[in-house]
Amino acid sequence: MRISKFAIPEIIFGRGSIVHLASCAKRVGARRVLLVSDQGLVAAGWVERIQEILRDNGLEWVYFDAVHSNPRDYEVHDGADVYMRERADVIIAVGGGSPMDAAKGIATIVGNGGRINDYEGANRIMRPLPPMIFLPTTAGSGSDISQFCIITDVARQVKMSIISRSLVPNVSIIDPLVLLTKSEELIISSAIDAFAHAVESYLSLLSSPFTEHQALKAMRLIAHNLRPALEDRSIEALENLSIAATSAGMSFSNAGLGIGHSLAHSLGGMFDVLHGLVHPILLPPVMRFNLPASVDKLANIGRIVCGPRMCSNEYIAQAGIAWLERFFADLRVPVRLRGILPDSSCLETIAKAAVNDACTLTNPRPASWESLLGVCQEAW
Amino acid sequence: MRISKFAIPEIIFGRGSIVHLASCAKRVGARRVLLVSDQGLVAAGWVERIQEILRDNGLEWVYFDAVHSNPRDYEVHDGADVYMRERADVIIAVGGGSPMDAAKGIATIVGNGGRINDYEGANRIMRPLPPMIFLPTTAGSGSDISQFCIITDVARQVKMSIISRSLVPNVSIIDPLVLLTKSEELIISSAIDAFAHAVESYLSLLSSPFTEHQALKAMRLIAHNLRPALEDRSIEALENLSIAATSAGMSFSNAGLGIGHSLAHSLGGMFDVLHGLVHPILLPPVMRFNLPASVDKLANIGRIVCGPRMCSNEYIAQAGIAWLERFFADLRVPVRLRGILPDSSCLETIAKAAVNDACTLTNPRPASWESLLGVCQEAW
Repeated sequence: MRISKFAIPEIIFGRGSIVHLASCAKRVGARRVLLVSDQGLVAAGWVERIQEILRDNGLEWVYFDAVHSNPRDYEVHDGADVYMRERADVIIAVGGGSPMDAAKGIATIVGNGGRINDYEGANRIMRPLPPMIFLPTTAGSGSDISQFCIITDVARQVKMSIISRSLVPNVSIIDPLVLLTKSEELIISSAIDAFAHAVESYLSLLSSPFTEHQALKAMRLIAHNLRPALEDRSIEALENLSIAATSAGMSFSNAGLGIGHSLAHSLGGMFDVLHGLVHPILLPPVMRFNLPASVDKLANIGRIVCGPRMCSNEYIAQAGIAWLERFFADLRVPVRLRGILPDSSCLETIAKAAVNDACTLTNPRPASWESLLGVCQEAW
Repeated sequence: MRISKFAIPEIIFGRGSIVHLASCAKRVGARRVLLVSDQGLVAAGWVERIQEILRDNGLEWVYFDAVHSNPRDYEVHDGADVYMRERADVIIAVGGGSPMDAAKGIATIVGNGGRINDYEGANRIMRPLPPMIFLPTTAGSGSDISQFCIITDVARQVKMSIISRSLVPNVSIIDPLVLLTKSEELIISSAIDAFAHAVESYLSLLSSPFTEHQALKAMRLIAHNLRPALEDRSIEALENLSIAATSAGMSFSNAGLGIGHSLAHSLGGMFDVLHGLVHPILLPPVMRFNLPASVDKLANIGRIVCGPRMCSNEYIAQAGIAWLERFFADLRVPVRLRGILPDSSCLETIAKAAVNDACTLTNPRPASWESLLGVCQEAW
C-alpha cells in the first residue's frame, strides 16, 4: 500500500446544529464576517437565520451574494475585493456547492493574491487562507468537506479544478433540517452528485482504506434512502442523504475522482447545466469504460445495489451498472446527453477539454481524449 | 439523532511516510522543535531517524525523554519548562501513548499556563496550543488521533482523563514499518487496547454514524489480523493493525469510551500496569454488564467475530463475548485480575475512583461504584 493522506474539516452534524455557528466563528477569531451565499431564494430562510445568530452574538457581517450557479472567476475577485475593503476576518458560506466554491476562491485570493486561474490544478496554493466555516444547504457537493474548488474561467469556457489541502474549511456545520424545503430536482441532482463522488473516488487510483469504506457507505445510504426522501420527505431519509454526501466528500476529497467528473466539468464550462444532472447520463458509460481496470471494485458496487449474489465478479459488476441505469430512469431525469445538449457537434471539444482536467489523472483506466469521446458517444 | 461532532487530525499513513515529517513541521511553522519521546529503547531507532530528517532540513530540536510509561504530572511540567526555556515553537512526539500524552500535557501548559490537573475532565482547555505532530510507534493508543490525554496525578494516585478538541494534534504520521521491530507483548497489548477503544466507543452513548463504522472496521481488522501479525510479522497484517488503531482512534475520540476505560485508568493510577493488558481482563465482564442496554450492538460485534449466524441477538451477543474470552486466553495474556494485582482488598478503592472518571459518563448502562465493583469481582 502506498502512502495515503487524509484530511477533513471538523464536522458538526445534526438537526439544529446551526446553533453552534457563533461559537465556531468566535473560536476561529471572527469579529467581522464575510457571509457568502447565492442569489435568489435557494438558501434564503437559512441566510436570515444565520444573520440572526451572528447579530445575537455580537458579530458583524458583510453579505456577498453575487454568485451564480457554477461560480465564475470574476465573482471570486469581486468577493475578495469586498472581503479586503470591508476588513473581514472569517468567511462563512451558506448554500450549495456554488457559494461554497466561490468562498474557497475568495479565501484563496485573500490569502495568496494574484488571479484565481493561477491556482488551477493540484497543490498550487502556498500561503494560508483566512478561516472558513461552511453550512451546506444541499446533500451533494461535498464542498464543505473537500479540498476541491471548481470555478469557471469565463474567457476559456472551462471549469477549473483547484485542489489543495488549504481549501478544506475549518468547520462544516451540517444541519439536515435545511433539506426539508428543497425541491425534488435539487434533492435528486445533489444525491446523484454524491453517488458519483462515491463511485469515482472508490475506483480512483488514490483510494485507500481510509476512503474506501466511506465511499461504500455513501453508495449504500443513497441507494436505500433517495426514494423514501422523495416520496415522503422523511427526515430520517434526508438525514441519511446528508450523512452519505458527507461520507462521499471525505472519500473524494482524499482519493480524487475520475473521468466522469472531468467530463462534467468540461460540459459545465461550455453549457451552464446543473452539475448533478450530468451524472445519471455519464456514470453508467464511465463505469463500463473502467470495467477492465476495476472489475472487483465494480463487483462490490454491484453487490451493494443489487444485494449479494452467487455469480462472477464480471456478472455482478455489469448487473450493478444496469441497476443504476434503471434507478436513474425511474427518477425521470435525463439519461442521454442528447436530452441536455443542442447537438453532438460539441462532443469532440468537450472530450479534448476533459482530458486535461485534474480528475483524469486518478481515473483507474488511462483515458485519451478519444476514449472520452467514446464515452460521450455511448451516452448520446 | 442528536448533534454529533467529529474532529480528527490530518493523517499521513503508509510505509515510509515518516519522510513527510519535515515538510509537515515547516508547514505548521517549525524552526525549533521540542522532540518528546520515552526513556529507553522503545522508539530508539525511530528517534535517530527523526533527528536525521530534522537536521537534513535545517530544523533545530531539543530532545525531551524524561517520560515514564503512564506519564506523570511533574513530567508534563518539566517538559513545558524545557519548551519555554528553549523557545521551541512546535512539539513533535514519537512513541506509544505515553510520550504522546505527555506531549499533549506539555502543549496544554505552554498554551494555557497553570497546573495540568486544572484541566481534568472535558472541555476545560480554553486557549490555543502550540502545533503538534505525532508519530505513533505502536498500533493501539490512538493518542495521535484523539482528543484524550491521560496523565497520572501522582499525589492522588489517579490517572486523569483530560478531553478537549484542542488536544487533537495537527498531523499524525503513521508509518507501519515501525511495528516490524516490536515485541510480541507490545503488539498484543496495543491491539487489544485498540479493540477495547472500538468496542467501548461503539457502545457509547455518544456514538454516531460517523464513528460507528470506524469502530466496526477496527474490530474486524484486529480480529482477522492480530494472529498473522504475531505469527509471521507479515507487514500487511501489521499495516492492518495500524489502520485498525487509527480507525478506533477516530471512533473513541469523537464518541467517548465506557467503564472498561474508567476502571483501566483507576487501576493504572494505583498500580503501574501496562494499560493494554488490563483490557483482556476487563472487556468481557464490561460487555456482559452492558448487555441489557446494548444487545443489538453487542450482537453486531458477535457477528463480526463469530461470522453471521441464524440466531437471536441475545445469543450471538453472548457468543461474541465467549469468542473474545477464548481469543484473549489463546494470546497467553493474563485474563483474571488476580493475575496482575497483589490482592482483592484494593477493588473497592478502584471502583470508587473509576466511577468519577469522565469515561463513565458515556457508558451505555448507568454504573454506580457498586456495579463497577461487581465487574471487578467477576474479573477477579
